[in-house]
Amino acid sequence: ALEADDEALIALLSEYHASEIAILFETLSQEARERIINILPLEIASEVISEMNVEIHPEKILNNLTPDKRTEIVEEMDYDDAADIISLLSEERQDEILEELDAEDASTIRNLLTYDEDTAGGLMNSQVLKVNSGLTKKEALEEIIRLSEEIEEFYTINVVDNYNHLVGIVSLKDILKSKHSVHIRELVKDDFVFVKANTDQEEVAKLLSQYNLTSIPVVDDEMHLLGRITFDDVMDVLQEENTEDMLKISGVSEDEELSGNWKEAVKSRLPWLILNLGTAFLAASVIRHFEPTLGQIPILAGYMAMIAGMGGNAATQALAVTVRRISLNDLTDSQAYSTVLKEFMVGMINGAVNGFIVFLFALLYDANPMLGFVIFSAMTGNLIIAGVAGSSIPLVLKRIGIDPAIASSIIITTFTDVFGFLLLLGLASELLL
Amino acid sequence: ALEADDEALIALLSEYHASEIAILFETLSQEARERIINILPLEIASEVISEMNVEIHPEKILNNLTPDKRTEIVEEMDYDDAADIISLLSEERQDEILEELDAEDASTIRNLLTYDEDTAGGLMNSQVLKVNSGLTKKEALEEIIRLSEEIEEFYTINVVDNYNHLVGIVSLKDILKSKHSVHIRELVKDDFVFVKANTDQEEVAKLLSQYNLTSIPVVDDEMHLLGRITFDDVMDVLQEENTEDMLKISGVSEDEELSGNWKEAVKSRLPWLILNLGTAFLAASVIRHFEPTLGQIPILAGYMAMIAGMGGNAATQALAVTVRRISLNDLTDSQAYSTVLKEFMVGMINGAVNGFIVFLFALLYDANPMLGFVIFSAMTGNLIIAGVAGSSIPLVLKRIGIDPAIASSIIITTFTDVFGFLLLLGLASELLL
Repeated sequence: ALEADDEALIALLSEYHASEIAILFETLSQEARERIINILPLEIASEVISEMNVEIHPEKILNNLTPDKRTEIVEEMDYDDAADIISLLSEERQDEILEELDAEDASTIRNLLTYDEDTAGGLMNSQVLKVNSGLTKKEALEEIIRLSEEIEEFYTINVVDNYNHLVGIVSLKDILKSKHSVHIRELVKDDFVFVKANTDQEEVAKLLSQYNLTSIPVVDDEMHLLGRITFDDVMDVLQEENTEDMLKISGVSEDEELSGNWKEAVKSRLPWLILNLGTAFLAASVIRHFEPTLGQIPILAGYMAMIAGMGGNAATQALAVTVRRISLNDLTDSQAYSTVLKEFMVGMINGAVNGFIVFLFALLYDANPMLGFVIFSAMTGNLIIAGVAGSSIPLVLKRIGIDPAIASSIIITTFTDVFGFLLLLGLASELLL
Repeated sequence: ALEADDEALIALLSEYHASEIAILFETLSQEARERIINILPLEIASEVISEMNVEIHPEKILNNLTPDKRTEIVEEMDYDDAADIISLLSEERQDEILEELDAEDASTIRNLLTYDEDTAGGLMNSQVLKVNSGLTKKEALEEIIRLSEEIEEFYTINVVDNYNHLVGIVSLKDILKSKHSVHIRELVKDDFVFVKANTDQEEVAKLLSQYNLTSIPVVDDEMHLLGRITFDDVMDVLQEENTEDMLKISGVSEDEELSGNWKEAVKSRLPWLILNLGTAFLAASVIRHFEPTLGQIPILAGYMAMIAGMGGNAATQALAVTVRRISLNDLTDSQAYSTVLKEFMVGMINGAVNGFIVFLFALLYDANPMLGFVIFSAMTGNLIIAGVAGSSIPLVLKRIGIDPAIASSIIITTFTDVFGFLLLLGLASELLL
């Protein structure tokens, strides 16, 4: 379709929603993306850029547009989207682009750029539907209809006093249902949820999801209304945080782009692997220590690999359940205690069952019941260690304020490797030699 | 506080939002929960039960209430929430409880119970804000205000014809902004997103998130309007799906409750561990095959553990990135191909770097350059296998319609264990003996 002339292309694309075009962009070349942005109607073009996955670099398109086109597109965008995308450019380039804009837009965006991107301030849109508490029903409705020209969606209406202090919220429904003579201040709900600009985005997502809100107002320390965060931004945050958790727990840096190139992937993963190599030397030193035992009973080597592999997997299970649980909710002391106790029990039972299977194998295949007993004990012991380490390490990290997902499988498998080898080879040295 | 008399307790709880009381419930005994539900105002009590985490069994509370109280509470609940909770009880008990309700409510809930809980039908609320396309602006507004008594939130207004066929949607904003004489049919947006009742809930979540919708209408095959799904239900779905992915990739059954007891955890994890044990026997048989080599070069045992551990971790990294990427988006053939190619490159480079470190160790500590070369080659080869298996297995599973997250670390580490041992011990047998 990209060989067609512009007119045919526009006709074709007009069938699609901007977010669909943004997804289509993921399969197109940079050149094709820029050509399409240049011929789309302004409104659609700005929405497409806003909706583009950051991994395919919307800022590059913005950067390569002619100054006039860029200004038109940025001024058509929501302020929060514009700030998010402009923030991806170098500071020098940011200044140049902001210079081209109308002074008020530039200052609003400049202001949004000052907030950390992981906070409420970084998420919020400063275009917010607000009415003064002194307005009558009729005046408020007129104001809302007027504002709705600029603001795409109006979920909740914020009510402010003459000094832009947020005094409460009111729903359009309540305004519509009220009597004619009513003033907004009589309808205001003053028991409402809001966040400060420096609130962490994960906390914002939790609040919005817990209270089933479509949007949440953002204020400064003096309760001045700064902006609002809508549910669609929060859904993106949830997905982002979930991705980060899954990557971290698997020993991948949280900022690796899923569709990044091999250079980025090496940069993100190599440090973790080298850390793992360091811990692997530790496990290997345990094995070296027991070299004489291994020399006398060489079939232990195969069982070693089993004990280590099973321990690592059982630890990963306990880790995933615990990290996911505490990422959704905080645990009380007694809940944390009973979580570790539970994982101890689970490790003991799973260890005993699997240990018994391997015991039977050693008995029947190697005809060595004492060897079977050693392996049974090492398997059970190692799966208990797996459960206790897999649950207690993330719990402790959370308590001391470190992200529990950092307790990745890499850290945890060190425990099970070292203790698994110690148990198996130590017991074998004592009981089989 | 639970020793206080009822009045003081109510006064205390009245400070809290229902969702906060639902969270508080997680730390209380079943007895305390039931006592609180019984003294709370009906409206709050039903909301608390709706908001309770399924893991602390809201259906038990419902089950233990007196029939009258239960009927009052269920009739106060949203139909979708009531159906969700009642569905957790035995079919017999479901019937008994539905008998107690008013006939219309019972039949609506009975209807919702017929949908699979993972589909749009299972998520939707059948109470939906709809107006007939023939109404005038004034009539429509009156109808909306009347309906808003029963329907908590009204994000989007569905427009139907005389036969309850969904013809489009209209926003309250557009109605308010329109001229007095207008009919709803003139305002209708007929280019809108909807889902069928049997659409998978993950697909619903994707659509709602992609198009930034507050709600999405649900229809049957003849476009009859059945209900709507709101963004707050979808946020819960997203979290649920993310939890399932993280558990599955770690070798935990997707339906293990995070706060479940040890019996459930054993049931959910033991099958995976036994599967892992089976694959571990495979890896152990490779080691047994090379027993003579190990007997002659016992220090190989320590290096074996390193190669296997590093391979497992590198595979987990590739797996997490790939599974997460395809859970968010489908990949084209060429994207899938370049993903595997990327992981090949990443495995080669990470393998060579880590292999070189171990080579240096073998050279300096064991004074055996040929051993170092064998280990370097095995490390590089195993990390390439890790990258290729970790990326291609989930991609293939997705193509053939199996959930890619099932390609858990347990499956993938079998590859790296078996091939790692084969490479290391095979090369050692060839080059060092």
